[in-house]
Amino acid sequence: MAKHERNNWKDIYPTPIYTLASFDMELPRTQKIKTYYVLKSKDWVNVIPITKEGKILLIRQFRHGLGEISLEIPGGIVDEEGRDASLVSAKRELREETGFTAKDENYELLSKFSGNPAMFTNWSYSYIAKDVEKTGPVEFDEGEDIEILLASPEEVKQYLVEGKIHHPHMAAALGLYFLKQERT
Amino acid sequence: MAKHERNNWKDIYPTPIYTLASFDMELPRTQKIKTYYVLKSKDWVNVIPITKEGKILLIRQFRHGLGEISLEIPGGIVDEEGRDASLVSAKRELREETGFTAKDENYELLSKFSGNPAMFTNWSYSYIAKDVEKTGPVEFDEGEDIEILLASPEEVKQYLVEGKIHHPHMAAALGLYFLKQERT
Repeated sequence: MAKHERNNWKDIYPTPIYTLASFDMELPRTQKIKTYYVLKSKDWVNVIPITKEGKILLIRQFRHGLGEISLEIPGGIVDEEGRDASLVSAKRELREETGFTAKDENYELLSKFSGNPAMFTNWSYSYIAKDVEKTGPVEFDEGEDIEILLASPEEVKQYLVEGKIHHPHMAAALGLYFLKQERT
Repeated sequence: MAKHERNNWKDIYPTPIYTLASFDMELPRTQKIKTYYVLKSKDWVNVIPITKEGKILLIRQFRHGLGEISLEIPGGIVDEEGRDASLVSAKRELREETGFTAKDENYELLSKFSGNPAMFTNWSYSYIAKDVEKTGPVEFDEGEDIEILLASPEEVKQYLVEGKIHHPHMAAALGLYFLKQERT
Protein backbone atom coordinates (compact mmCIF):
# COMPACT_ATOMS: atom_id res chain seq x y z
CA MET A 1 0.00 0.00 0.00
CA ALA A 2 1.24 3.48 -0.89
CA LYS A 3 2.79 5.97 1.47
CA HIS A 4 0.31 8.44 2.90
CA GLU A 5 1.86 11.78 3.86
CA ARG A 6 -0.43 14.45 5.22
CA ASN A 7 1.08 17.83 4.30
CA ASN A 8 0.13 21.50 4.42
CA TRP A 9 -2.12 21.31 7.49
CA LYS A 10 -4.51 24.23 7.98
CA ASP A 11 -6.80 24.96 10.90
CA ILE A 12 -10.14 26.10 9.48
CA TYR A 13 -12.59 26.53 12.36
CA PRO A 14 -12.14 25.85 16.08
CA THR A 15 -15.03 24.70 18.27
CA PRO A 16 -14.86 23.97 22.01
CA ILE A 17 -14.52 20.21 21.31
CA TYR A 18 -12.56 19.93 18.05
CA THR A 19 -11.02 22.03 15.28
CA LEU A 20 -12.03 21.53 11.67
CA ALA A 21 -8.75 21.30 9.73
CA SER A 22 -7.49 20.30 6.31
CA PHE A 23 -4.37 18.77 4.80
CA ASP A 24 -3.22 17.78 1.33
CA MET A 25 -2.35 14.22 0.36
CA GLU A 26 -1.19 12.48 -2.80
CA LEU A 27 -3.79 9.97 -3.95
CA PRO A 28 -2.29 6.47 -3.76
CA ARG A 29 -3.15 5.33 -7.28
CA THR A 30 -3.24 8.51 -9.41
CA GLN A 31 -0.57 10.64 -7.61
CA LYS A 32 -2.95 13.62 -7.80
CA ILE A 33 -2.99 15.96 -4.77
CA LYS A 34 -6.31 16.11 -2.93
CA THR A 35 -7.40 18.19 0.08
CA TYR A 36 -8.94 16.23 2.97
CA TYR A 37 -10.88 17.60 5.94
CA VAL A 38 -10.48 16.20 9.45
CA LEU A 39 -11.50 17.06 12.98
CA LYS A 40 -8.59 17.57 15.38
CA SER A 41 -9.78 16.70 18.87
CA LYS A 42 -8.47 15.88 22.29
CA ASP A 43 -8.93 12.22 23.19
CA TRP A 44 -12.21 11.00 24.66
CA VAL A 45 -12.88 8.49 27.43
CA ASN A 46 -15.73 6.39 28.74
CA VAL A 47 -16.09 3.96 31.62
CA ILE A 48 -18.21 0.87 32.30
CA PRO A 49 -19.06 1.21 36.01
CA ILE A 50 -20.01 -2.04 37.76
CA THR A 51 -21.45 -2.14 41.26
CA LYS A 52 -20.62 -4.72 43.96
CA GLU A 53 -23.96 -6.35 43.10
CA GLY A 54 -22.87 -6.78 39.48
CA LYS A 55 -25.15 -4.09 38.04
CA ILE A 56 -23.92 -1.79 35.28
CA LEU A 57 -24.40 1.95 35.86
CA LEU A 58 -25.90 3.66 32.81
CA ILE A 59 -26.77 7.29 32.24
CA ARG A 60 -29.40 9.07 30.18
CA GLN A 61 -28.64 12.51 28.80
CA PHE A 62 -29.59 14.83 25.97
CA ARG A 63 -27.08 14.71 23.12
CA HIS A 64 -26.77 17.78 20.95
CA GLY A 65 -25.74 16.15 17.67
CA LEU A 66 -28.58 13.67 17.52
CA GLY A 67 -31.04 15.99 19.29
CA GLU A 68 -32.31 13.13 21.45
CA ILE A 69 -31.95 11.63 24.91
CA SER A 70 -29.26 8.94 24.67
CA LEU A 71 -28.67 5.89 26.88
CA GLU A 72 -24.94 5.65 27.56
CA ILE A 73 -22.15 4.91 29.99
CA PRO A 74 -20.39 7.88 31.62
CA GLY A 75 -17.73 9.58 29.52
CA GLY A 76 -16.31 12.79 28.20
CA ILE A 77 -13.22 14.57 27.01
CA VAL A 78 -9.70 13.81 28.22
CA ASP A 79 -9.07 17.25 29.69
CA GLU A 80 -6.20 16.18 31.92
CA GLU A 81 -2.66 15.97 30.56
CA GLY A 82 0.40 13.90 31.28
CA ARG A 83 0.79 10.33 32.50
CA ASP A 84 -2.45 8.31 32.83
CA ALA A 85 -4.42 11.31 31.51
CA SER A 86 -7.25 9.17 30.12
CA LEU A 87 -7.55 7.23 33.40
CA VAL A 88 -7.68 10.43 35.46
CA SER A 89 -10.35 11.76 33.11
CA ALA A 90 -12.35 8.51 33.35
CA LYS A 91 -12.39 8.78 37.15
CA ARG A 92 -13.41 12.44 36.97
CA GLU A 93 -16.21 11.86 34.46
CA LEU A 94 -17.66 8.99 36.48
CA ARG A 95 -17.61 11.06 39.67
CA GLU A 96 -18.95 14.27 38.11
CA GLU A 97 -21.71 12.66 36.06
CA THR A 98 -22.97 10.12 38.61
CA GLY A 99 -21.49 10.78 42.08
CA PHE A 100 -20.17 7.19 41.96
CA THR A 101 -16.49 6.34 42.38
CA ALA A 102 -14.29 3.24 42.53
CA LYS A 103 -10.99 2.57 44.24
CA ASP A 104 -7.98 3.29 42.03
CA GLU A 105 -7.04 -0.39 41.84
CA ASN A 106 -10.51 -1.25 40.50
CA TYR A 107 -9.98 0.59 37.21
CA GLU A 108 -8.86 -1.43 34.20
CA LEU A 109 -8.28 -0.31 30.60
CA LEU A 110 -10.65 -2.29 28.38
CA SER A 111 -9.60 -0.98 24.97
CA LYS A 112 -9.28 2.11 22.87
CA PHE A 113 -11.24 2.94 19.76
CA SER A 114 -10.51 5.62 17.19
CA GLY A 115 -12.62 8.78 17.50
CA ASN A 116 -13.59 7.81 13.96
CA PRO A 117 -10.63 6.90 11.79
CA ALA A 118 -12.15 8.48 8.66
CA MET A 119 -12.50 11.94 10.13
CA PHE A 120 -11.19 12.35 13.70
CA THR A 121 -7.53 12.46 14.72
CA ASN A 122 -8.11 11.23 18.27
CA TRP A 123 -8.63 8.09 20.31
CA SER A 124 -11.42 7.19 22.73
CA TYR A 125 -10.35 5.11 25.75
CA SER A 126 -12.72 2.68 27.47
CA TYR A 127 -12.22 1.66 31.10
CA ILE A 128 -13.93 -0.81 33.40
CA ALA A 129 -14.50 0.35 37.00
CA LYS A 130 -15.40 -2.43 39.45
CA ASP A 131 -17.23 -2.11 42.79
CA VAL A 132 -18.37 1.45 42.15
CA GLU A 133 -20.47 3.06 44.87
CA LYS A 134 -22.16 6.37 45.47
CA THR A 135 -19.70 8.49 47.45
CA GLY A 136 -20.73 12.08 46.74
CA PRO A 137 -22.92 14.49 44.82
CA VAL A 138 -22.91 14.94 41.06
CA GLU A 139 -21.09 17.94 39.57
CA PHE A 140 -22.65 18.53 36.18
CA ASP A 141 -21.08 20.80 33.55
CA GLU A 142 -23.28 23.79 32.83
CA GLY A 143 -25.02 22.07 29.90
CA GLU A 144 -25.45 18.66 31.57
CA ASP A 145 -28.61 17.20 33.11
CA ILE A 146 -28.04 13.49 33.64
CA GLU A 147 -30.19 10.65 35.00
CA ILE A 148 -28.60 7.41 36.16
CA LEU A 149 -29.96 3.89 36.14
CA LEU A 150 -28.62 0.51 37.20
CA ALA A 151 -29.11 -2.44 34.85
CA SER A 152 -28.12 -6.09 35.00
CA PRO A 153 -25.66 -7.35 32.36
CA GLU A 154 -28.56 -9.24 30.80
CA GLU A 155 -30.60 -6.04 30.56
CA VAL A 156 -27.67 -4.17 28.99
CA LYS A 157 -27.24 -6.93 26.41
CA GLN A 158 -30.93 -6.60 25.62
CA TYR A 159 -30.61 -2.80 25.24
CA LEU A 160 -27.77 -3.39 22.76
CA VAL A 161 -29.72 -5.98 20.79
CA GLU A 162 -32.76 -3.65 20.68
CA GLY A 163 -30.61 -0.72 19.48
CA LYS A 164 -31.32 1.34 22.60
CA ILE A 165 -27.61 2.01 23.22
CA HIS A 166 -26.54 3.67 20.00
CA HIS A 167 -23.48 5.74 20.92
CA PRO A 168 -20.92 3.91 18.78
CA HIS A 169 -18.02 4.11 21.23
CA MET A 170 -20.13 2.97 24.14
CA ALA A 171 -21.82 0.17 22.22
CA ALA A 172 -18.37 -0.94 21.07
CA ALA A 173 -17.01 -0.86 24.64
CA LEU A 174 -19.96 -2.80 26.08
CA GLY A 175 -19.87 -5.31 23.23
CA LEU A 176 -16.18 -5.87 23.81
CA TYR A 177 -16.71 -6.18 27.57
CA PHE A 178 -19.27 -8.95 27.06
CA LEU A 179 -17.13 -10.62 24.38
CA LYS A 180 -14.14 -10.71 26.75
CA GLN A 181 -16.30 -12.12 29.55
CA GLU A 182 -17.59 -14.86 27.28
CA ARG A 183 -14.01 -15.87 26.47
CA THR A 184 -12.76 -16.14 30.05
CA MET B 1 -35.64 16.20 32.02
CA ALA B 2 -36.00 19.64 30.42
CA LYS B 3 -37.12 20.35 26.87
CA HIS B 4 -34.26 20.76 24.43
CA GLU B 5 -35.07 22.99 21.47
CA ARG B 6 -32.34 23.60 18.94
CA ASN B 7 -32.95 27.06 17.43
CA ASN B 8 -31.18 29.50 15.13
CA TRP B 9 -29.30 26.92 13.06
CA LYS B 10 -26.34 28.26 11.05
CA ASP B 11 -24.19 26.44 8.51
CA ILE B 12 -20.57 27.39 9.19
CA TYR B 13 -18.35 25.35 6.89
CA PRO B 14 -19.24 22.64 4.36
CA THR B 15 -16.89 19.74 3.62
CA PRO B 16 -17.54 16.91 1.14
CA ILE B 17 -18.71 14.62 3.98
CA TYR B 18 -20.39 16.89 6.54
CA THR B 19 -21.16 20.54 7.26
CA LEU B 20 -20.01 22.18 10.47
CA ALA B 21 -23.07 23.98 11.85
CA SER B 22 -24.23 25.65 15.04
CA PHE B 23 -27.47 26.17 16.90
CA ASP B 24 -28.54 27.87 20.13
CA MET B 25 -30.14 26.02 23.02
CA GLU B 26 -31.40 26.94 26.45
CA LEU B 27 -29.37 25.17 29.14
CA PRO B 28 -31.66 22.80 31.06
CA ARG B 29 -30.80 23.94 34.58
CA THR B 30 -29.78 27.61 34.24
CA GLN B 31 -32.02 28.71 31.31
CA LYS B 32 -29.01 30.49 29.80
CA ILE B 33 -28.69 30.35 25.98
CA LYS B 34 -25.60 28.53 24.73
CA THR B 35 -24.30 27.96 21.19
CA TYR B 36 -23.49 24.33 20.30
CA TYR B 37 -21.54 23.07 17.29
CA VAL B 38 -22.55 19.94 15.40
CA LEU B 39 -21.67 18.14 12.19
CA LYS B 40 -24.56 17.72 9.77
CA SER B 41 -23.90 14.63 7.69
CA LYS B 42 -25.67 12.19 5.43
CA ASP B 43 -26.14 8.78 7.04
CA TRP B 44 -23.38 6.18 6.92
CA VAL B 45 -23.54 2.44 6.38
CA ASN B 46 -21.39 -0.62 6.92
CA VAL B 47 -21.83 -4.31 6.22
CA ILE B 48 -20.58 -7.53 7.79
CA PRO B 49 -19.98 -9.79 4.76
CA ILE B 50 -19.97 -13.53 5.49
CA THR B 51 -18.90 -16.11 2.94
CA LYS B 52 -20.53 -19.52 2.35
CA GLU B 53 -17.60 -20.98 4.31
CA GLY B 54 -18.43 -18.80 7.33
CA LYS B 55 -15.49 -16.42 6.97
CA ILE B 56 -15.92 -12.70 7.59
CA LEU B 57 -14.63 -10.39 4.85
CA LEU B 58 -12.52 -7.57 6.29
CA ILE B 59 -10.77 -4.70 4.56
CA ARG B 60 -7.64 -2.72 5.26
CA GLN B 61 -7.47 0.89 4.13
CA PHE B 62 -5.77 4.17 4.98
CA ARG B 63 -8.00 6.44 7.05
CA HIS B 64 -7.38 10.15 6.81
CA GLY B 65 -8.50 11.21 10.30
CA LEU B 66 -6.30 8.78 12.17
CA GLY B 67 -3.53 8.84 9.58
CA GLU B 68 -3.14 5.07 9.77
CA ILE B 69 -4.13 1.87 7.97
CA SER B 70 -7.34 0.64 9.62
CA LEU B 71 -8.83 -2.87 9.75
CA GLU B 72 -12.56 -2.61 9.07
CA ILE B 73 -15.61 -4.01 7.40
CA PRO B 74 -16.77 -2.39 4.13
CA GLY B 75 -18.76 0.81 4.49
CA GLY B 76 -19.26 4.37 3.41
CA ILE B 77 -21.76 7.17 2.95
CA VAL B 78 -25.44 6.65 2.19
CA ASP B 79 -25.37 8.47 -1.15
CA GLU B 80 -28.59 6.96 -2.45
CA GLU B 81 -31.94 8.48 -1.56
CA GLY B 82 -35.45 7.19 -1.09
CA ARG B 83 -36.75 3.88 0.14
CA ASP B 84 -34.13 1.40 1.43
CA ALA B 85 -31.40 3.99 0.76
CA SER B 86 -29.05 2.58 3.40
CA LEU B 87 -29.50 -0.98 2.09
CA VAL B 88 -28.80 0.11 -1.50
CA SER B 89 -25.69 1.94 -0.27
CA ALA B 90 -24.54 -1.10 1.72
CA LYS B 91 -24.74 -3.27 -1.40
CA ARG B 92 -22.89 -0.66 -3.45
CA GLU B 93 -20.12 -0.18 -0.88
CA LEU B 94 -19.55 -3.94 -0.56
CA ARG B 95 -19.39 -4.35 -4.34
CA GLU B 96 -17.20 -1.30 -5.02
CA GLU B 97 -14.73 -1.87 -2.19
CA THR B 98 -14.33 -5.66 -2.49
CA GLY B 99 -15.89 -6.98 -5.72
CA PHE B 100 -18.00 -9.28 -3.51
CA THR B 101 -21.80 -9.31 -3.63
CA ALA B 102 -24.66 -11.21 -1.99
CA LYS B 103 -28.16 -11.99 -3.20
CA ASP B 104 -30.73 -9.35 -2.17
CA GLU B 105 -32.48 -11.77 0.19
CA ASN B 106 -29.22 -12.40 2.05
CA TYR B 107 -29.01 -8.86 3.44
CA GLU B 108 -30.33 -8.23 6.95
CA LEU B 109 -30.33 -5.03 9.01
CA LEU B 110 -28.31 -5.68 12.16
CA SER B 111 -28.74 -2.35 13.92
CA LYS B 112 -28.15 1.34 13.60
CA PHE B 113 -25.80 3.44 15.66
CA SER B 114 -25.67 7.20 15.94
CA GLY B 115 -22.91 8.89 13.90
CA ASN B 116 -21.90 10.14 17.35
CA PRO B 117 -24.80 11.50 19.37
CA ALA B 118 -22.70 14.26 20.96
CA MET B 119 -21.66 15.83 17.67
CA PHE B 120 -23.12 14.24 14.53
CA THR B 121 -26.73 14.56 13.35
CA ASN B 122 -26.76 11.30 11.41
CA TRP B 123 -27.16 7.55 11.82
CA SER B 124 -24.87 4.72 10.74
CA TYR B 125 -26.64 1.55 9.59
CA SER B 126 -25.07 -1.89 9.95
CA TYR B 127 -26.08 -4.79 7.73
CA ILE B 128 -25.20 -8.47 7.62
CA ALA B 129 -24.69 -9.98 4.14
CA LYS B 130 -24.66 -13.79 4.02
CA ASP B 131 -23.10 -16.05 1.39
CA VAL B 132 -21.11 -13.26 -0.24
CA GLU B 133 -18.93 -14.22 -3.18
CA LYS B 134 -16.55 -12.52 -5.57
CA THR B 135 -18.60 -11.59 -8.63
CA GLY B 136 -16.69 -8.72 -10.22
CA PRO B 137 -13.84 -6.24 -10.06
CA VAL B 138 -13.45 -3.57 -7.40
CA GLU B 139 -14.39 0.03 -8.25
CA PHE B 140 -12.45 2.20 -5.85
CA ASP B 141 -13.23 5.89 -5.33
CA GLU B 142 -10.33 8.08 -6.46
CA GLY B 143 -8.82 8.19 -2.97
CA GLU B 144 -9.33 4.51 -2.11
CA ASP B 145 -6.75 1.72 -2.12
CA ILE B 146 -8.21 -1.24 -0.28
CA GLU B 147 -6.91 -4.70 0.59
CA ILE B 148 -9.29 -7.48 1.56
CA LEU B 149 -8.81 -10.42 3.90
CA LEU B 150 -10.98 -13.31 5.05
CA ALA B 151 -10.99 -14.15 8.75
CA SER B 152 -12.82 -16.74 10.84
CA PRO B 153 -15.30 -15.47 13.46
CA GLU B 154 -12.79 -16.59 16.10
CA GLU B 155 -10.04 -14.53 14.46
CA VAL B 156 -12.31 -11.47 14.26
CA LYS B 157 -13.16 -11.82 17.97
CA GLN B 158 -9.44 -11.95 18.68
CA TYR B 159 -8.84 -8.80 16.57
CA LEU B 160 -11.51 -7.04 18.65
CA VAL B 161 -10.05 -8.20 21.94
CA GLU B 162 -6.58 -7.11 20.82
CA GLY B 163 -7.86 -3.67 19.77
CA LYS B 164 -6.97 -4.24 16.12
CA ILE B 165 -10.45 -3.26 14.90
CA HIS B 166 -10.82 0.24 16.31
CA HIS B 167 -13.38 1.94 14.04
CA PRO B 168 -16.12 2.50 16.64
CA HIS B 169 -19.09 1.81 14.37
CA MET B 170 -17.55 -1.33 12.98
CA ALA B 171 -16.41 -2.65 16.37
CA ALA B 172 -19.92 -1.94 17.66
CA ALA B 173 -21.50 -3.78 14.73
CA LEU B 174 -19.22 -6.81 15.05
CA GLY B 175 -19.66 -6.92 18.83
CA LEU B 176 -23.43 -6.82 18.42
CA TYR B 177 -23.28 -9.51 15.73
CA PHE B 178 -21.41 -11.87 18.06
CA LEU B 179 -23.66 -10.95 21.00
CA LYS B 180 -26.78 -11.80 18.98
CA GLN B 181 -25.25 -15.09 17.85
CA GLU B 182 -24.48 -16.03 21.44
CA ARG B 183 -28.12 -15.42 22.39
CA THR B 184 -29.73 -17.53 19.65
